[in-house]
Amino acid sequence: MRSWVEVAADSHFPIQNLPYGVFSTGDNEPRVGVRIGDFVLDLVALHDAGLLPGANVYDRPFINDLMALGPRAWQEVRNAITDILRESEPTLRDDDELRSATLIPVSQVKMHLPVRIGAFVDFYSSEQHATNVGSMFRPDAPLMPNWKHLPVGYNGRASSVVVSGTPIKRPHGQTAPGQSTEPIFGPSKNLDFELEVGFFTGTENPLGNQVPTSRAADFIFGLVLVNDWSARDIQRWEYQPLGPFLAKSFATTISPWVVTMAALDPFRIAGPDQDPPVLDYLKYDKPWRLDMDLEIHLKTERMSQPQVICRTNYKNMYWNMAQQLAHQTVNGTNVQIGDLYASGTVSGDEPDSFGSMLELAWRGERPLVMQETGEERKFLEDGDTVMLTGHCQGDGYRIGFGEASGTIRPA
Amino acid sequence: MRSWVEVAADSHFPIQNLPYGVFSTGDNEPRVGVRIGDFVLDLVALHDAGLLPGANVYDRPFINDLMALGPRAWQEVRNAITDILRESEPTLRDDDELRSATLIPVSQVKMHLPVRIGAFVDFYSSEQHATNVGSMFRPDAPLMPNWKHLPVGYNGRASSVVVSGTPIKRPHGQTAPGQSTEPIFGPSKNLDFELEVGFFTGTENPLGNQVPTSRAADFIFGLVLVNDWSARDIQRWEYQPLGPFLAKSFATTISPWVVTMAALDPFRIAGPDQDPPVLDYLKYDKPWRLDMDLEIHLKTERMSQPQVICRTNYKNMYWNMAQQLAHQTVNGTNVQIGDLYASGTVSGDEPDSFGSMLELAWRGERPLVMQETGEERKFLEDGDTVMLTGHCQGDGYRIGFGEASGTIRPA
Repeated sequence: MRSWVEVAADSHFPIQNLPYGVFSTGDNEPRVGVRIGDFVLDLVALHDAGLLPGANVYDRPFINDLMALGPRAWQEVRNAITDILRESEPTLRDDDELRSATLIPVSQVKMHLPVRIGAFVDFYSSEQHATNVGSMFRPDAPLMPNWKHLPVGYNGRASSVVVSGTPIKRPHGQTAPGQSTEPIFGPSKNLDFELEVGFFTGTENPLGNQVPTSRAADFIFGLVLVNDWSARDIQRWEYQPLGPFLAKSFATTISPWVVTMAALDPFRIAGPDQDPPVLDYLKYDKPWRLDMDLEIHLKTERMSQPQVICRTNYKNMYWNMAQQLAHQTVNGTNVQIGDLYASGTVSGDEPDSFGSMLELAWRGERPLVMQETGEERKFLEDGDTVMLTGHCQGDGYRIGFGEASGTIRPA
Repeated sequence: MRSWVEVAADSHFPIQNLPYGVFSTGDNEPRVGVRIGDFVLDLVALHDAGLLPGANVYDRPFINDLMALGPRAWQEVRNAITDILRESEPTLRDDDELRSATLIPVSQVKMHLPVRIGAFVDFYSSEQHATNVGSMFRPDAPLMPNWKHLPVGYNGRASSVVVSGTPIKRPHGQTAPGQSTEPIFGPSKNLDFELEVGFFTGTENPLGNQVPTSRAADFIFGLVLVNDWSARDIQRWEYQPLGPFLAKSFATTISPWVVTMAALDPFRIAGPDQDPPVLDYLKYDKPWRLDMDLEIHLKTERMSQPQVICRTNYKNMYWNMAQQLAHQTVNGTNVQIGDLYASGTVSGDEPDSFGSMLELAWRGERPLVMQETGEERKFLEDGDTVMLTGHCQGDGYRIGFGEASGTIRPA
C-alpha cells in the first residue's frame, strides 16, 4: 500500500505506520496529529472537514481522550486515516485548499509530550542487561533467584517524563565514592542513559482485577522509545534496600510519536524459550516479541555528526509486554489510560549491543572513543547529546519511531 | 477559640482544625467541604452565599484546585471559614435556612478520595522500623550505611490509593516460602498494614529546581493518615534488587480529611538530634517534627469492638517532612499539586509502639491475642478491619485525623 503523500523508502513514517502525537504550530494550542512522511496530518482540521468518525477528541493537549474511545475506535480511526491517505483516494489529494489546511510540514511544528502519563513503571526485562549490571553491583549474585520467574519492575516518577528534545539538567545528589560510607554532595559524575521501549495502556481496568496475557491486546495502545536517564553514582549509594529513586527520577525522555500496536502487528515473533517454565499467569499464546532494530547515537559538543555507539534489537527481551502487564496487575492493581510501562534497558549478547553507557564502557574500564574527535567517554559529559532511534523493517517499508533525543546541560 | 457548632471535647474536629475533604450527599456530585464537629460545611453552598473569597474551586471532585490557589489563599480561605464558625459570628449561626443549607450532619455524607494524586512517594523514615524490618530481611545489615545520611524512599503506585472505608482485596502473587527459590502462586498469606503519615504538596515546582527545607512550608498543604498495605511474602520474593513493587501496589488507604499545616503548626517540636550530621541540603531551621499520637485498632469478624494494638507517635520519625521534600527535589525532580509523600511506618522504641504487624507479632513469633475472642493474629485474616487514627492534643482541644480504615476481603 502506498500514499499520495511522498514518503522516502527509508522514512520511519509510511502509510503503514500512522503514529499519533501532539503538536503545535506558531502560537496555536497543542492538538493531536498523525505523522506521514515529512508531514503532520492535523486531526482537528480533518475532523472539522467531516473526514473522521465519532467525536472530536483531537483538540486536546494529549491523546488520552483518543485512547479512551477504546480498541474498536482505535481501528476505525486508523482505517479512516488510512483511507484518506491511500494513493487512490482523491479527497485530500486533489483538494489544494483542504490539503494545505490539514497537512503541515514537520519542519513547521513543535512536538509535545503526547500522553498525560498516569503511572510510570519500569521493568528490567533483558537478561543480558540484568546480568551485566548485576555483576557490577553485586558480583556474588548478578542475576537474582527471582529474575527468571517474574518480570522484575519498580515504580518510576511519571512527572519528569519529557518529550524528545527537552534539555536534561545534570542532577545533584549524594554519592559515596569507592568504598566510602561518608557521602559527598554535588553534581552526578556518572550520568548515563538507558535505551528502552515503553508501551502506553489505552484502556482502564478497575482496582481488584487482573489483565491476563490473553487480554493484553485490548490494553496496549502503542509504543515509544524511552531513555531512562540514570545517575549511576547516586544509584549505587541510595538504592538499597528500596530500589532506585533519585538516580532515575530527575528525567526520562520519550519519543514524540506513539506507534500503535496495529502498525507493529506484522513484526511479532515467537519466543524466546523461557526456562524454567513460567507460572500459569505468565504463559501466553499469541507472539508478543517484536523484531525491532534499535540504535543509540552519541554526539559530543565538538562533533559535527553523531556516532552510533549501540546497535541492538527489542527482540532480545526475555519478558514481553503481555507478561509485564499480566504481572503488574496480578495483584489487582488498576490500569489507567495513559500509564507508561517501559521494558528496562535493551541489551543484546555482543558488547556493542548493550543499551547503557555503564555496560558499553564497562563501568569506565573500556571508555568509548569518538572517531571524529578522539574524545573518550566513560559516562556523559555536559553538552553530550544522546539520541535513540528504532524501527521495524517491513517488505519495502519501515515502521519507525523517529527519535528520542536529549542534550546534557550543566548542573 | 470556640465555635457556635457544638463540638465535644474529645472531637477531632474543633474550630482549630477545619480539615478539607470531598463529600457527596444522595445523588449529588462530590464537592469540597470542611469538617467541624459532627458536621460538614458545604463550601459550594458557602461560596454561593457569598461568604468565601475568590473563585469557586469547591464544585470539584478533588481539592487540587483549592490547593492551586497558593499559600496566601490557603490562609485567606481558612480565616474566612474560621470567622464564619466562631462563637460570636451570627451570619450562619442565626440564619436557620442558610445554616441548614451549608451545614450537613456527617451521618448523611459519603466521603471520597480528597485529592487527585499525582505521584505517591513512600519514605522509610523511622529508625526503629528500618532496624526492626532490616533485622528480619537482612540479619547481617539491618540498617544500611546510607540510612542516616538520606531519607530513603521509593516511588509507590498512586492509582491504587483509596479513601478510608474502601474494602481491601487480598492480593494474589508469587511467593517462595522458606528458603525455596521455586515460587508458588496464590493469595498472599502474610498480609500486613503499615501505619504512616503522609503530606500533600499544594504547590508546583518546575523540573530542574530544588525545594530547600526553608521553603517547605510553601509546598506542604496538609496531612493524612496512610495505611500502606503490604504483602510480606510477595515482598520478600520480589524486592531485590529494585525494591517493593506488587507487595505494595494493590492498595493504600488514606484518611478522608486533609488536616492543614496551619492547624498543625502549634504542635511542631524540635529535633531529633541527627548524628552523624546531615549534609547541608538536609539541614533545617524551623522545627518540623510533629507531636502527634497515633493508634492502630484491629477488629476481627468475631469481635464486637476493635482492640488497640499499637500506640505510637509521629515524633518518633528520624527524618522530617522538610527533609523528605528537600531530598526528593535535590536532583531537580518537579513537584506537582497533589503529590502524596508518606513517612514510612511509624514505629517507636517499645514493642507495642511498632506500626506494622510484621513488627508487632515479630514475624509471627509473638502472635497478637485478641482479648475479646482469644483469637491470635500473625498477619491479617479475611474479614479483619484495620483502623488507624491519630491526633495532636492541644490545651482543651484536639486536632485529629478521624480514621483510615479498611476491611480485608477474600482474594
